[in-house]
Amino acid sequence: MKILIAGLGLIGGSFALALREHGLADEILGVESSEEHAAQALELGLADRIVPFAEGIDEAELVVLATPVDTIPLLAVKALNRATDRKIVMDMGSIKAELCEVVSQHARRGRFVAVHPMWGTEYSGPRAAQRDAFRGRNTVICDADRSDPDALETVERIFRTLGCPIIRMESEEHDLHAAYVSHISHVTSFALANTVLEKEREEHRIFDLAGGGFESTVRLAKSSAQTWVPILLRNKYNVLDVLREHIHQLQLLRRMIERDDAEGLAAAIRRANSIQKIIR
Amino acid sequence: MKILIAGLGLIGGSFALALREHGLADEILGVESSEEHAAQALELGLADRIVPFAEGIDEAELVVLATPVDTIPLLAVKALNRATDRKIVMDMGSIKAELCEVVSQHARRGRFVAVHPMWGTEYSGPRAAQRDAFRGRNTVICDADRSDPDALETVERIFRTLGCPIIRMESEEHDLHAAYVSHISHVTSFALANTVLEKEREEHRIFDLAGGGFESTVRLAKSSAQTWVPILLRNKYNVLDVLREHIHQLQLLRRMIERDDAEGLAAAIRRANSIQKIIR
Repeated sequence: MKILIAGLGLIGGSFALALREHGLADEILGVESSEEHAAQALELGLADRIVPFAEGIDEAELVVLATPVDTIPLLAVKALNRATDRKIVMDMGSIKAELCEVVSQHARRGRFVAVHPMWGTEYSGPRAAQRDAFRGRNTVICDADRSDPDALETVERIFRTLGCPIIRMESEEHDLHAAYVSHISHVTSFALANTVLEKEREEHRIFDLAGGGFESTVRLAKSSAQTWVPILLRNKYNVLDVLREHIHQLQLLRRMIERDDAEGLAAAIRRANSIQKIIR
Repeated sequence: MKILIAGLGLIGGSFALALREHGLADEILGVESSEEHAAQALELGLADRIVPFAEGIDEAELVVLATPVDTIPLLAVKALNRATDRKIVMDMGSIKAELCEVVSQHARRGRFVAVHPMWGTEYSGPRAAQRDAFRGRNTVICDADRSDPDALETVERIFRTLGCPIIRMESEEHDLHAAYVSHISHVTSFALANTVLEKEREEHRIFDLAGGGFESTVRLAKSSAQTWVPILLRNKYNVLDVLREHIHQLQLLRRMIERDDAEGLAAAIRRANSIQKIIR
């Protein structure tokens, strides 16, 4: 299959590597707005050729959108506009409701598959692409009943070959749960990094005391603004909803510490401990 | 050297394994208030014998206190009271100011060394003990000038043998920086777990969307109340200080999201990104 990937960064680049490794692509065409990233992508073998978007769509059988989420809805419409000959268009973005709404009345809606593989790291750009990135991670497909059966089957077959269990979800539902589970973690990590940078005037002490737990909670704070500003703003209401609850939970802990409420604090920590039943 | 370890959980147990691996202990005596933990510690080879505290001190050359931080000051005084014959007493706790104040006027203050190796996991109890736990992690020694040179040298030699760079710090300074770097990460992780448990009524969705970043920020939320309630309450003023700033930072992000302030949000994220210059 000839595949076009728009955006050869962390997600698109890792997808290219996975497609090649599993022999799923005869040729990979890439679209990159940054010349530097285009050169890196070619050098890393993420694409065979860099092409203009429209030209790539005309050539490819499968079009993959892996650009920042604010750019995906318009690219999806443009891709569908040219998606003749049973071409398939899929995206790999972290939010879905706006996107699925935008394409909902498109004459070729059936050729579109909304995909979110649950994998990522805090790094970005072509050099962040990793081999074996998606294996074992769930892949969410949104509003699957709106996709043509053959398009859906092709996309699902690719992800099954990559070792990803497939989960179906409505797009609105996806964005709600993604805010709760993924987006809030990034917000809290950004805030924690800024807290420590604000309070800890002796930066070398952060380094000295590494190992105390800070690294894991702050890892996501390395994530790029280009990726995350659009995610947080375009999933605004869900993110604000869970952010309000998070601030409330921190205020509860603060009040318990202020009052030396050892029992309340122990109960809150034991409640938090129950998360280990859900995640590994 | 005959070594007594009071508390054979995550830290004390891992220390026992490290001492054995490096041939630093001829015999390890253990003190355990929990019968179940005592049995586990023997079974795992963390101690050769379980003994009463006072008896163990009389036998040992080095006494190691690795119990929850609220119990350490009193145990330190009791150990020093019996620390005849140039015995050495050290602790491995996460907070130091109260402890160092308590022992400051003890006639045998010089026999005490306040130690905090910067390693831990979210698990606890003897079964959480790990081989090779401390290697490469900084070990903080507090108020080192108050310890006798021979006691200090013995303790530093042990940690150097374990592969730990030694860092000296005043105890007050240690507690301040530990609050900024380590304790706040635990508070935010507990709060995040409770936020998600509160908002996410469909628990299987947390599992479905694993991979989105949640696991790393919430890992510390598995940490035990027995360990963390005393740390947070006994380092109360430092923890509250940094917690107030953290809530403030979250409120700043919230306001930017509410106002669709993409520029402000991008600036805040880029500021947070600078944490990568400090930690790996």
